[in-house]
Amino acid sequence: MKVPVVQGILNANDQIALQNKQLFDKHGICVINIMASPGSGKTSLILRTIDALQGRLRIGVIEGDIASNVDADRVAAKNAPVVQINTGGQCHLDAPMVQRSLEQLPLDDLDLILIENVGNLICPVSFKLGEDLNVMLASVPEGDDKPYKYPGIFVAVDAVVINKLDLLPYLRFDVAAFRKRIAGKNPQVRILGEYCEMCIGKEEWDEGLARQMEEKVKRL
Amino acid sequence: MKVPVVQGILNANDQIALQNKQLFDKHGICVINIMASPGSGKTSLILRTIDALQGRLRIGVIEGDIASNVDADRVAAKNAPVVQINTGGQCHLDAPMVQRSLEQLPLDDLDLILIENVGNLICPVSFKLGEDLNVMLASVPEGDDKPYKYPGIFVAVDAVVINKLDLLPYLRFDVAAFRKRIAGKNPQVRILGEYCEMCIGKEEWDEGLARQMEEKVKRL
Repeated sequence: MKVPVVQGILNANDQIALQNKQLFDKHGICVINIMASPGSGKTSLILRTIDALQGRLRIGVIEGDIASNVDADRVAAKNAPVVQINTGGQCHLDAPMVQRSLEQLPLDDLDLILIENVGNLICPVSFKLGEDLNVMLASVPEGDDKPYKYPGIFVAVDAVVINKLDLLPYLRFDVAAFRKRIAGKNPQVRILGEYCEMCIGKEEWDEGLARQMEEKVKRL
Repeated sequence: MKVPVVQGILNANDQIALQNKQLFDKHGICVINIMASPGSGKTSLILRTIDALQGRLRIGVIEGDIASNVDADRVAAKNAPVVQINTGGQCHLDAPMVQRSLEQLPLDDLDLILIENVGNLICPVSFKLGEDLNVMLASVPEGDDKPYKYPGIFVAVDAVVINKLDLLPYLRFDVAAFRKRIAGKNPQVRILGEYCEMCIGKEEWDEGLARQMEEKVKRL
């Protein structure tokens, strides 16, 4: 007698995330979900990426915030297509929110969508959006002990970008120990680049994104 | 005919929070719930407060974290009674967690309990613990736009402490604008002190705590 095997049924969020993913794939768009604490520099990373990849990749942005559109205004000033999601109190983006926001983006004219999640190291990790890559932005002033205290996000992400390295001289932050603690939680994680807002950033982040894009195009 | 008035029924968390509050009052203990982003300096504020109020108030500490006990170890090194709550993924402390942790603290020998909530500007705001005061710690590297983006916490707290002011020379952060934005969300809020980890902190925070304690003792 055959035992029937029932595949895991996707929860409501994951079902919509899968629909988002299929839509992104259909349009050949690579999607990065950027997660971090409040004030770690997510919007600055996005603005700098738009500048660095101008003429090379067509970038759209989804800004997630509890309230306000100060971040989306900064992106719009770069003439990049942007949509602001206000969660109205919810501590993370979810796939239905992203699905609704896509109606506002010119999907035929984009290669890359950067999603800025709500500033929170915990809740966003549990909600797929349809992204290709999950990236965490770690800010030096937050301290080098975060992999101990917020292990879930370090396990979940594909890459960590270390930000605000220009503040290193004024803080107790051991970059080597931080890298080791991240690797302890997630040996596969890529530390794409050590990026800082106020100095000329390393090119690894931009190169990493461009490579990711090329890989995706080859795959489709 | 009399219309019966049904009082709002407390939810399960608030019921336990009320029990916690009654227990604290019975022991004459003032309780502060400290909320902030990850890495804003909550533990450092607690350590410094223990030092500053030594011999004046007997302080116990409840440390809330997703995982690890690195924070509690730092407090224990000061010989202050401390209990670590690991939420195991939950993005905030709740009243039942605090209730269970109180079995580990010498309530008869304490005047003040400092609760360090999980690093998160959003979720902790919705869960009463039984505290007398809610305090938010705002860290300068997080930027001066936070009252726009996380209005809920600024509305909810009794006081805001601004931390890491020693980094002001290296950042774009307008203290006057930040204060004005906080007042815009919550005109009653007290900005108890501008505190920085690496310089000699102002005395307003400690004095504020001592005053709060005296007020509570008078009230009971």
